[in-house]
Amino acid sequence: MPYATYEFGGARRVGRVEGDRLVPLDGLSELGRDTPSDVLSAARERPAEAVPMAAVRVCPPVPNPDKIVCVGLNYHAHVGETGRDLPTYPVLFTKFASSLIGPYDDIVLPPESLQVDYEAELAVVIGKAGRRIPPEKAVDHVLGYCVANDVTMRDYQYKTHQWLPGKAWDRSTPLGPYLVTPAEADLTAARVTTVLGGRELQSSDTSRLIFGIPTLIAAISEFTTLLPGDVILTGTPGGVGFRRDPQVFLRDGDEITVSVEGIGTLVNRVRAEG
Amino acid sequence: MPYATYEFGGARRVGRVEGDRLVPLDGLSELGRDTPSDVLSAARERPAEAVPMAAVRVCPPVPNPDKIVCVGLNYHAHVGETGRDLPTYPVLFTKFASSLIGPYDDIVLPPESLQVDYEAELAVVIGKAGRRIPPEKAVDHVLGYCVANDVTMRDYQYKTHQWLPGKAWDRSTPLGPYLVTPAEADLTAARVTTVLGGRELQSSDTSRLIFGIPTLIAAISEFTTLLPGDVILTGTPGGVGFRRDPQVFLRDGDEITVSVEGIGTLVNRVRAEG
Repeated sequence: MPYATYEFGGARRVGRVEGDRLVPLDGLSELGRDTPSDVLSAARERPAEAVPMAAVRVCPPVPNPDKIVCVGLNYHAHVGETGRDLPTYPVLFTKFASSLIGPYDDIVLPPESLQVDYEAELAVVIGKAGRRIPPEKAVDHVLGYCVANDVTMRDYQYKTHQWLPGKAWDRSTPLGPYLVTPAEADLTAARVTTVLGGRELQSSDTSRLIFGIPTLIAAISEFTTLLPGDVILTGTPGGVGFRRDPQVFLRDGDEITVSVEGIGTLVNRVRAEG
Repeated sequence: MPYATYEFGGARRVGRVEGDRLVPLDGLSELGRDTPSDVLSAARERPAEAVPMAAVRVCPPVPNPDKIVCVGLNYHAHVGETGRDLPTYPVLFTKFASSLIGPYDDIVLPPESLQVDYEAELAVVIGKAGRRIPPEKAVDHVLGYCVANDVTMRDYQYKTHQWLPGKAWDRSTPLGPYLVTPAEADLTAARVTTVLGGRELQSSDTSRLIFGIPTLIAAISEFTTLLPGDVILTGTPGGVGFRRDPQVFLRDGDEITVSVEGIGTLVNRVRAEG
């Protein structure tokens, strides 16, 4: 079932998505550290407090994760466009919890960067803590899936060989719209797309991931304990703006749509900060 | 004044270091998000509950920071030994809160890595939140200083061009022993040293930092809000084990000492996991 973290009437709640309404779950204010899989599945619904989706602000499903681990160069076509060699171990880096925004929030262009770029990605949220998780048990540790736009300030990403300054800007990264549980997600070959101003700029599918989700969970949990609410961004396909000719960057007034088939769609306006 | 986070009688407290005793501060269980500079300086002491240092476990001063930002290649001699060009912008990457251990805890060698290395560093702890902090105001945002051993699994650091897997192993990174406030810290040219098994393997001083603390705080806070308790590891001098001939790595049974003059000393036993 899909779940959302949302704000309504000044309070933050977790709700089950039922058509165009949200049915709140008793006692849960957000998905994250305190909502492992068993807590989420045992939470009681409060149907009398259901609200129309249109009346709420949808937050990132996990507004405050302990960790966000991102994967680079995880689709063949994207590795090709960067001119790099095919990785034999996942390229891993991080964002901060403060990097996240909701699925329909504005992407704000900081005045310092002239190269704000998009990256459509499937995101995985952890539901059960684990260290050294073997790939064959990885799915037991997944709470669900959602969509991310791994917005990247390319001029800051490439200031040095370490990417953090291009990846971790406050309030840069849409995540959502909902968390889709594993039982409802078919990721065999789910389409991953970006549309900017009506033009499709990325289009691939999850069958083309170089390192699949079980391998990523195993590799990350080899060195650090994955906790409930931790988010893994699985990497972007080819077609990013920085590698196009001519290059494409996000501009004030743009609307950008990032989708993963069967999981959901992010729609964000772009505006200059100020 | 130096402050410590410590465990005694099953509880975690913050105490002022007074010779070989700790005088607990009322209402504070650890340094971090909830102890900005004004809260720490206003906290009342409870001298009746003072305990001898020898009776406590000293924790990392900030056991659970929101962010740990590390700086690479920030001393000339270390840049030289890696064969890289001098950076014109700081090389920034992260560790996780779960990477930290106390100043006298054991460094545990995971069986997966054959190249566990040391890095002596000055650490800065933030005391006042800020975004886009100008260098000339950076010192107002510092709660204090301590010492870090940025223990690094070199074989994992260099699996790809992004360093996270070598830097973020759970329970790898000693931090402490105490937090020394800016008024008591003279960092003009404080010696930074590593001694392993009686042999001095790193020796430099903080006058040789390429990017000084104000520049680092300005660069990081350009893209993300620094919060109270956030930790910045300012980089290591030359002499790391990986770049020596023959190479030196941490071995079961070693004792390693990392010091920053006037700030403190970490002493850790090394043992194999299991």
